[in-house]
Amino acid sequence: MRGNSNYEARLADFKDLISKIEYLKCTLNSLVYWDKLTYMPSEGIEYRTKVMSFMAEQQYRFMSSSRFIGHVRYFEGNKKNDPITDSMISRIRRSSEYINKIPEEEYKRYIELIAMSEQVWQQAKAEKNFDLFKPYLDRIFCTFRKFAQYWGPTEDPYDALLGYYENGLTVNKVDELVSELKPFLIEMLRKVKEKQKDCGKKPLIMPKVDGARQQAIWKTVLSDMGFRFEAGRVDIGSHPTILANSPSDVRIVNSYREEDLRSGLFNVLHAGGKGIYQQSISKELLGTFLAEVPSFALEEGIGRFYENILGRSQGFWKYFYDKICSIAPELKKFTEREFYEDINMVSPSLIRIEADQMTYLLHIIIRYEIERELINQRLTVDGLPDAWNQKYEDYLGIRPANDSEGVLQDIHWASGYVGYFPAYFVSNLAAAQMSAAIEKDCGSLNGLMVEGRFDIINDWLKEKVFRYGAIYDTEELIERATGRPLDSKDYIDYLREKFSEVYKSNAIL
Amino acid sequence: MRGNSNYEARLADFKDLISKIEYLKCTLNSLVYWDKLTYMPSEGIEYRTKVMSFMAEQQYRFMSSSRFIGHVRYFEGNKKNDPITDSMISRIRRSSEYINKIPEEEYKRYIELIAMSEQVWQQAKAEKNFDLFKPYLDRIFCTFRKFAQYWGPTEDPYDALLGYYENGLTVNKVDELVSELKPFLIEMLRKVKEKQKDCGKKPLIMPKVDGARQQAIWKTVLSDMGFRFEAGRVDIGSHPTILANSPSDVRIVNSYREEDLRSGLFNVLHAGGKGIYQQSISKELLGTFLAEVPSFALEEGIGRFYENILGRSQGFWKYFYDKICSIAPELKKFTEREFYEDINMVSPSLIRIEADQMTYLLHIIIRYEIERELINQRLTVDGLPDAWNQKYEDYLGIRPANDSEGVLQDIHWASGYVGYFPAYFVSNLAAAQMSAAIEKDCGSLNGLMVEGRFDIINDWLKEKVFRYGAIYDTEELIERATGRPLDSKDYIDYLREKFSEVYKSNAIL
Repeated sequence: MRGNSNYEARLADFKDLISKIEYLKCTLNSLVYWDKLTYMPSEGIEYRTKVMSFMAEQQYRFMSSSRFIGHVRYFEGNKKNDPITDSMISRIRRSSEYINKIPEEEYKRYIELIAMSEQVWQQAKAEKNFDLFKPYLDRIFCTFRKFAQYWGPTEDPYDALLGYYENGLTVNKVDELVSELKPFLIEMLRKVKEKQKDCGKKPLIMPKVDGARQQAIWKTVLSDMGFRFEAGRVDIGSHPTILANSPSDVRIVNSYREEDLRSGLFNVLHAGGKGIYQQSISKELLGTFLAEVPSFALEEGIGRFYENILGRSQGFWKYFYDKICSIAPELKKFTEREFYEDINMVSPSLIRIEADQMTYLLHIIIRYEIERELINQRLTVDGLPDAWNQKYEDYLGIRPANDSEGVLQDIHWASGYVGYFPAYFVSNLAAAQMSAAIEKDCGSLNGLMVEGRFDIINDWLKEKVFRYGAIYDTEELIERATGRPLDSKDYIDYLREKFSEVYKSNAIL
Repeated sequence: MRGNSNYEARLADFKDLISKIEYLKCTLNSLVYWDKLTYMPSEGIEYRTKVMSFMAEQQYRFMSSSRFIGHVRYFEGNKKNDPITDSMISRIRRSSEYINKIPEEEYKRYIELIAMSEQVWQQAKAEKNFDLFKPYLDRIFCTFRKFAQYWGPTEDPYDALLGYYENGLTVNKVDELVSELKPFLIEMLRKVKEKQKDCGKKPLIMPKVDGARQQAIWKTVLSDMGFRFEAGRVDIGSHPTILANSPSDVRIVNSYREEDLRSGLFNVLHAGGKGIYQQSISKELLGTFLAEVPSFALEEGIGRFYENILGRSQGFWKYFYDKICSIAPELKKFTEREFYEDINMVSPSLIRIEADQMTYLLHIIIRYEIERELINQRLTVDGLPDAWNQKYEDYLGIRPANDSEGVLQDIHWASGYVGYFPAYFVSNLAAAQMSAAIEKDCGSLNGLMVEGRFDIINDWLKEKVFRYGAIYDTEELIERATGRPLDSKDYIDYLREKFSEVYKSNAIL
């Protein structure tokens, strides 16, 4: 009895401490930073920077306090088969280990390297000059080879990096997915291109729609989709993102272009999906660090589910086209079908973030193959642009004219995100696998959307995924929700069916 | 030398600590609270309340840390005739003493009393039922009689309360001001009423102007007046106020009524004046607790200067009337003179916050006389409503029909603001005294405004008042800026001249 009451008392004290760290974290990340993106007057930046670094320091102090460390040790030594406490401890342990395994001096040098290299990358990209960035990129990959050793040992050093972003992801697993996806995507792209040659469709030119009406459209669509404005909002800001103060206060930041309402709209569908996720996490998990998404990859997957699988479907537009046209009647010059076909037009692009649903993972495959070779020293940064350009030619049939639209396009490596790209496999495949599982349980997504029954879709996801926050990691959550581990089957089926329909052609099947 | 370098090192460490407390304070008061007033989704309140109480607790911890207390002791014992450090220490000392002199148990009981009494006051006011509130009010005045003893001894116990809000203000000083103001105001009001009988003007009925255009008007007026939007902003919120993150980030919160644009406009002039003040405080003072206004009264006085002395003047409307009409052409149905006379119409009101410039201080005189009698036990809460109503009849010629438009109208007492009302004498008289000093140095305010030369007015205030933040207290600052201590002369002259002009009558002089 005595031991148990000590356990309970310690747990209460630990949760109290974690709550405080969460207060700091949510205020810093989701309010102070949100304000910086949205409403802060320009001259506020200098003082704001100081406030932000103070709050980050406070957060660090709480997490390195003897009270905090003592509790972590105690609960590691006193497991009671309580899934929430166990998961809380293992998440804390995991995130601190990644840092602690790196010698302090080296970590400091890494932080300095990244600060510099982001600046140089920006300049190199603007000047289309890879040589400028090359020495920094070389040092970054050297650093991550070392980090992989500290974090390992693993079969392939790249495994250690994959595991940092997505617990349990390995080269073997990714290779298996790539071996199924790559030939399929390349072949399907070839067929679509042939089909396109026959029908010769041109992209639609959108009418101009001002910001106020675009925002009214977002509000209508998000509300109907199930994002709750009593517990969230959408504001205009310099860098589109989503920030959650708590499940009751979720902030979407978005931007728009007057000349093409689709850019802001699909962004807001993506963020809105993530927002529904954040709003649905059980509030009981506050005070445990688990009232958050389990991984970037899964959150991104949910974003892609709402943006692409729902947002680019026939059912979605059957339900929303007239509603949107009633706010922006200029759109009526296109039929719903024309609009639908246009937002699903396949068009190989040099730039990842402009990629359509079908070619997107080819961009990721290229990055995965290249990163892995670089980490294993089978490719040098000198040979990088050629390798990159050749792969674009081989897989997508187009070749960058310069390195800014090639190897310099993403900020990821400059910011130290090495081993991060393969998380996009998880995101996209998870979205398709969940989508298939929902259809099995609730019937056709298209059918549900035509009736505006987003509640049924959201309820399934809440019940199977969202409410658990970070109690389970991504892999486990996918398996619990869909009945099997992540694979590429549903994704391939989805693309096949979708684009056969879009291009009205069985030749694609 | 050694002592000196210790002094310097200690000062640097103290300022570092104060900066951190300021980061917490500004984030809590000016960003977390600002967001609560403006953009927070409704369901965010529960979690927000926890975050706010955590941050207040953190602030308290920093200020009660041994590091903080040690520094205060050291600098009290090591004065080097450095005005900033001395002032910093004496402000810290003063604010902590007020709390420390009250026994902890009593202070706790007081906080509980206030929390209850605000609720009861709200209900009593809604139900026009003073009896409900009476026992709470009695306990509040009992408590403040005790506090006055702890804070004293002073000649009159009420002095101790006055001094809490405005360092150095005494009953003797206030009595002197009241003895000059009261007969003048009562007599002048009588003359104006006679004059009004003759001319029989009716108040203008304003056209409806929507929120978007009202906000455009605010932006135009504030910009021209010198509020810098690079370092500030205006948002719509539930409770009009102004909140400064730093001199580079000053946030006005305002509201509006479509059916009368004047309410939002004069609020925003008031807040805008305070905003120009906040933006002009020297940034060098950050990290000393002195980058703030010296007292509520002076800040309020600057607000009243911009709202009333500038904002209700002929010159102001000569400059702005056409500009405002270009945004709201409906206003053109009134001439500039009609509009000007209407916003300056004298009309005795039962409600303080609706009072015009001429009768405003009569409301304050009534509250001052009553508070002082209550504290000195020459009046009981039982006798309060009669005393209140009689004074309204004697001074303003009108009598409340019930206690909600009488003694229950202000939240101040229920919130524990006892001894606070006389600060409004300082505010109003300081505004007039500074105004006269500016005219002496820079020429007629009307003349400057007709030319839109708000920069000259602002520069004088920056130079003489604003930049000093809280280095000097209000009394000293007024004397340094205007060449003499605060008195009622300029205020009386101002009202006499202003209303003779408004009513085009020498009989008022």
